[in-house]
Amino acid sequence: MLGAVEAGGTKVHVAVGNSPYEIVASARIPTTEPKNTISAMLEFFDDYQDRLRGFGVASFGPVRLDRQASDWGELLNTPKPGWSGASFVQPLLERYRLTVALDTDVNAAALAEQRFGALRGTKSGVYITIGTGIGAGIVIEGRPVHGLLHPEFGHVRVRRNLPIDDGFAGACSFHGDCLEGLASGSAIERRWGCSLSELPCDHPAHALIADYLGQACATLALTLSTAKIVIGGGVSQTAGLHAAAGARMRVWLAGYLASAEIMADDYVTAPALHDRAGLIGGFLLAEGAARCSPAHAVAAERSSGADESIVGALQATARTLVHDA
Amino acid sequence: MLGAVEAGGTKVHVAVGNSPYEIVASARIPTTEPKNTISAMLEFFDDYQDRLRGFGVASFGPVRLDRQASDWGELLNTPKPGWSGASFVQPLLERYRLTVALDTDVNAAALAEQRFGALRGTKSGVYITIGTGIGAGIVIEGRPVHGLLHPEFGHVRVRRNLPIDDGFAGACSFHGDCLEGLASGSAIERRWGCSLSELPCDHPAHALIADYLGQACATLALTLSTAKIVIGGGVSQTAGLHAAAGARMRVWLAGYLASAEIMADDYVTAPALHDRAGLIGGFLLAEGAARCSPAHAVAAERSSGADESIVGALQATARTLVHDA
Repeated sequence: MLGAVEAGGTKVHVAVGNSPYEIVASARIPTTEPKNTISAMLEFFDDYQDRLRGFGVASFGPVRLDRQASDWGELLNTPKPGWSGASFVQPLLERYRLTVALDTDVNAAALAEQRFGALRGTKSGVYITIGTGIGAGIVIEGRPVHGLLHPEFGHVRVRRNLPIDDGFAGACSFHGDCLEGLASGSAIERRWGCSLSELPCDHPAHALIADYLGQACATLALTLSTAKIVIGGGVSQTAGLHAAAGARMRVWLAGYLASAEIMADDYVTAPALHDRAGLIGGFLLAEGAARCSPAHAVAAERSSGADESIVGALQATARTLVHDA
Repeated sequence: MLGAVEAGGTKVHVAVGNSPYEIVASARIPTTEPKNTISAMLEFFDDYQDRLRGFGVASFGPVRLDRQASDWGELLNTPKPGWSGASFVQPLLERYRLTVALDTDVNAAALAEQRFGALRGTKSGVYITIGTGIGAGIVIEGRPVHGLLHPEFGHVRVRRNLPIDDGFAGACSFHGDCLEGLASGSAIERRWGCSLSELPCDHPAHALIADYLGQACATLALTLSTAKIVIGGGVSQTAGLHAAAGARMRVWLAGYLASAEIMADDYVTAPALHDRAGLIGGFLLAEGAARCSPAHAVAAERSSGADESIVGALQATARTLVHDA
C-alpha cells in the first residue's frame, strides 16, 4: 500500500491505496500551522502503517527537492506564516522509516497528467496551475525538471500589449506585473474585485488574462518545444479560457513553430484529471519510493502499467476520486 | 576514430579524432549550396573511413531531431537558400553505414560546455549563442532538450523597458522585436549600422542589449531553475556583456531566486571552450554514436572520462584546437 500527500497552502490531501486508481481511504486536512497539520497527517497514516511501503509527497513551494541537501524536504522562505523551515517529509521518514519521494505539487500534477491525463503520449509537457499564485511543473521524457531548486515560472514577465490594458500595477510583491502579478486569482481579485468567472463574458478581463496566458504558453513553446500545455487551478475553470489562451499564443508566435501539434485546438488544454492531478502524482511518486523502500514487496510493480481502461476510468472518476473525510 | 561535424550557416567544420582532445585532422568548408558542401564533407571523411566508428553532427536549425520521423536529419524551412530539405546526416549514413548522432549546434555546444567547460558540475545548463540569429541549447541532467522539434528560444519576447529604448521595430521577420529581433548581430547591425563592440562603451546600445539578455536569462532561470547560463557567439565577445547581462537579470528577478548560484558573478558567463564548443559537442555526439555502431570497438570508452588535466588542456587549447585546412 502507498501513502500519498498533496500539500497545498490551504489544505493537505492525504490518501492510501495500492495505486491512484485503488484508493482505500483519504482525508483533507486544513493547512493551519505545521504542528497540528502534520500531527493530523500522521494520525491518518498510522492506521495503515503496517501495510505501507512508501510515500509520495507533492508539496507547495518553495521546497528543497535536492535529496543530497541537508534541508531536503524543507519548505523554504514561504509567505505562509510558520511554514518556512517546516517539512512534510521528515516526520514521515522518522515515524515510518520508509522511503519518501518528494516533488512540487505542479511537477506531481504534470507527472500524473503525463501518465494518465492530457499529456499522455507526449515527450515534454507542462502543467500550469493558476490559483492564488501561478506555478508550473515540467516533465521531459518522463522526468520532472528540478534544476537548482524547481521552476518558478509564475514570475516570468509578459508584455502589457493590448490597448484595453489599464494601468494596473500588478499584485506580485516582488515583481509587480509579472505573470502571477497579472493573471493569478489574487491579481484578478485585486484588479477587478471578483473572480474571472464572475465577470461578464464581454468584460475586457477575459481578453487580457487570455493574452497574458497566451504569452506564457508561447514562452514555454519557444523555450522547451513543449508538446502540450495543461492549465489547471481555479482561474482556469473560467469558460473558454484554454481556447482563448491558445489562440493568443498563436498570435504571439505569428506563424512560427507552426507544427500540427502547436496549431491543434487542444495544445493548451484543461487537466484530464480535474483537480486530482496533484494527489494522483503523489501516488506516482510513492510508487517510485516503494521500489526503493526496505519493505519493497512483490506487489510494487502492479500499478506501473496504465492500460486504456485504467486511464479512462481514472479520468472519468478523478473529480470524485477522493472521498474527503 | 570519430567523425564530428559542426554545420553552421556560413561554414561547416569537420574533424576526425579519437576524442575531442585527440583531433587528428580538421577542415572548414564554406556553406554554399548543399551539393558542393556535402561533397566536400564526404571527401574529407573518405580519407579516414576505414578507421571511423561513428559520426556526430551538430547542425544549424530548424532540423528534425526525432529519429523516428521519416525526415530525420533534414533541415526544415530555413531561410538559407537551397537548404530546406537538405541533410548532413543522410549522406554520412549512406556512404559509411555507421551510426550518426544528431543534435542542434547549440545543444551540442551545451553538452560540450557541460562536459568540459563552464557548465561542468551543473545539473541544468543553457548555452545561448548570439550571432546573426539567437539560439539556445538546454542540457538537463546530461540530456539535451528536444521537445517537439528543439528549443527556439531566440524568439521569446522581452520588454522594451529602459527609457533609453528607441522606437526600433526589431529585425525578426516573424516577430519584429522578439529577443532575436532586438539583440542578434543582424538586429544590432540594422539598428546602429555596426557591431556592438564597434560602438563606444558609453553608447546606450550596451545597456539595451544587456537588458534584453538579462530578461532572457531571468526567463530561463524562472522557467527551468537553470544552474548556469553560457552566452557565446560573436555578439557575446563584446567586453563586459556577460557581467552586464547578469546584473540586469538580477534587477529583473528583484530579489527572487536569490540563491548563491544565481547571485554569483559567473551565473551568466562566457563559454570556456571559446568558439569550439559546437565541434567538441559533435565529438561527444559521435562518442554516443560509436557505442551503437556496427564497428563498435574496445576503444570506444577511452574518451568518456573527463579528468581535470584533460579538461584544463581542452579549455586552454580550444581556441586553437581546430587547425583549419
